[in-house]
Amino acid sequence: MHLRVLSRIMQRIFEQGAMMIETPYLLFLGDAPDQLSAKVAQGIKDWRPDNAVGQYRMQGCRADVGLQDMSLAEAKAAGARTLVIGVANRGGVISQAWKDVLIEALKMGFDLASGLHNLLANEGDLVAASQVSGSTLHDVRVPNVEYPIANGKKRSGKRVLAVGTDCSVGKMYTALALDEAMHERGIKSTFRATGQTGILITGSGVPLDAVIADFMAGAVEYLTPENDDDHWDIIEGQGSLFHVSYSGVTLALIHGGQPDALILCHEPTRPHMRGLPEYQLPSLQAVSDAALMLARVANPDCQVVGISVNTQHMSEAEAEAYLADLEKEMGLPAVDPFRQGAAKLAAALEEL
Amino acid sequence: MHLRVLSRIMQRIFEQGAMMIETPYLLFLGDAPDQLSAKVAQGIKDWRPDNAVGQYRMQGCRADVGLQDMSLAEAKAAGARTLVIGVANRGGVISQAWKDVLIEALKMGFDLASGLHNLLANEGDLVAASQVSGSTLHDVRVPNVEYPIANGKKRSGKRVLAVGTDCSVGKMYTALALDEAMHERGIKSTFRATGQTGILITGSGVPLDAVIADFMAGAVEYLTPENDDDHWDIIEGQGSLFHVSYSGVTLALIHGGQPDALILCHEPTRPHMRGLPEYQLPSLQAVSDAALMLARVANPDCQVVGISVNTQHMSEAEAEAYLADLEKEMGLPAVDPFRQGAAKLAAALEEL
Repeated sequence: MHLRVLSRIMQRIFEQGAMMIETPYLLFLGDAPDQLSAKVAQGIKDWRPDNAVGQYRMQGCRADVGLQDMSLAEAKAAGARTLVIGVANRGGVISQAWKDVLIEALKMGFDLASGLHNLLANEGDLVAASQVSGSTLHDVRVPNVEYPIANGKKRSGKRVLAVGTDCSVGKMYTALALDEAMHERGIKSTFRATGQTGILITGSGVPLDAVIADFMAGAVEYLTPENDDDHWDIIEGQGSLFHVSYSGVTLALIHGGQPDALILCHEPTRPHMRGLPEYQLPSLQAVSDAALMLARVANPDCQVVGISVNTQHMSEAEAEAYLADLEKEMGLPAVDPFRQGAAKLAAALEEL
Repeated sequence: MHLRVLSRIMQRIFEQGAMMIETPYLLFLGDAPDQLSAKVAQGIKDWRPDNAVGQYRMQGCRADVGLQDMSLAEAKAAGARTLVIGVANRGGVISQAWKDVLIEALKMGFDLASGLHNLLANEGDLVAASQVSGSTLHDVRVPNVEYPIANGKKRSGKRVLAVGTDCSVGKMYTALALDEAMHERGIKSTFRATGQTGILITGSGVPLDAVIADFMAGAVEYLTPENDDDHWDIIEGQGSLFHVSYSGVTLALIHGGQPDALILCHEPTRPHMRGLPEYQLPSLQAVSDAALMLARVANPDCQVVGISVNTQHMSEAEAEAYLADLEKEMGLPAVDPFRQGAAKLAAALEEL
């Protein structure tokens, strides 16, 4: 018990230290060429609206996430602590056209946060400005903690992990919707981000795809520490056991997360595995069997409790028919959390 | 065909560039406290004797790998190009007591190679000496190549991977013994190192446990490129699908290596998974089923062809009885390559 308390205190220190991006944010949309390029900002607005006081748009910006437009000074007055780059232009790099605004923000004492490929820390002008003002540059693609080797010890609290038939089938969306549905039912839960977007949305997490191989599972243990017995960590999944480029990351999540429950995630209209034209998608049953077998190495009680389907390329009628068939076939609740919310999945977890 | 040729040329350029440690070596045993601490040097002597002209022992050295003792000048005259640190003292770090010899070696134009935890590149005095002489410092724990994301494309040539019930059950030994047995049968093969010791033994490879998560499978594809249709890559395994600390690395090997054949590796007397007292070892059948199911994602023709057992903690009679029972139970050839060589495993590959 003593150790458990100590472990929780340590976790809080870590979270308040290296990992935490200070909120609230001002969302930087820059010169976004279209709405889709602002999906990080949109995610923050959709899932953590309290984390943002407004949006900053440059001339010619073609995105709008529906927050109040603010100048840097207005956002500062409204309490904003961090300017978050909520836009990705072609190539996913920091644009020279943004520099004047970013440097001005640093001079005014804002921290900067970015999930882009090139790093704030490698831009000399931004580094110089941050040193003058004492601001922090957060590159959420880069781990800023030395994660431990996983020890596999059973931790208190409960954990659910989203596992997919493929990459980019809606695992983050599912986990965020499930976290929301759990809160609505009055169940204690925390969304645990494992990718750039999730980290920017919530302000903390582990950029798992950038962690050194030996420490992947340990990073997941660090992300999901001991907790109250009735608390659920909702762990964002990555990759797929059946995606040959990233499957190792997925298995580290399964073994580091020692989940009590798995949610299967699927996009039924995809013609092949993302980025791998030679590879067909596995069946949901194959993913269920493989993930459960491997999850039970770390947690013999693990169960598959539901299915989350991304039906964006189906009509409402098609989606409903597909989900109904799937429930019958798999004997599990199946929902599209975007159309229907994740209440059914939360209920399945509560029953566990 | 054009692309295949280009890919081979590229591979050779890479190998001759960043990856290759120049041979022959002088093996540095330093002030080794016992024979076991010189296991890297012993591995080089056992598996690639042509790679070493001699050994260098300091006063008080208690290891001897049976090579001729040489001064730096004698080794230089015998053609040695690289001084390889073949010893790990307590803590696995570069000892201050070695520094005079290492600096002298650099001044004489030797390259230095090390697999120790602290890096040659972080020792200012070694870096300074190497800059004066133009020598190269090889830290084989650190990837020195930007590996690609795996593309999963079918490659020509054949590959076999060692997969274990646990870490440190003899996967490297098995792969090296199998490579030797293949050569004895006149079959073209190459041992592909994925860990520090293997890299120092052969002079090239990928330090997979130090690769960034997203690039693990791509690093294995890079390590085992297209080849002649009758050539076998013998890929050194790492970790275990059932070892929760490192299983992600194992799965990256299975998917990046797209093996045609798997060899199961096992140590029957181990009371629990290495470093995980709460975890029992899986059965060989469970490892076979899990590895084969996952391997067939990348290579539907993959087969489990044999079993390699580390019987060092058994008597000769016990070992023979155990292996005979295992062959009956699993319907696969089972050998201890240390006691018997790997001819049976090579024969099983040849039949495939």
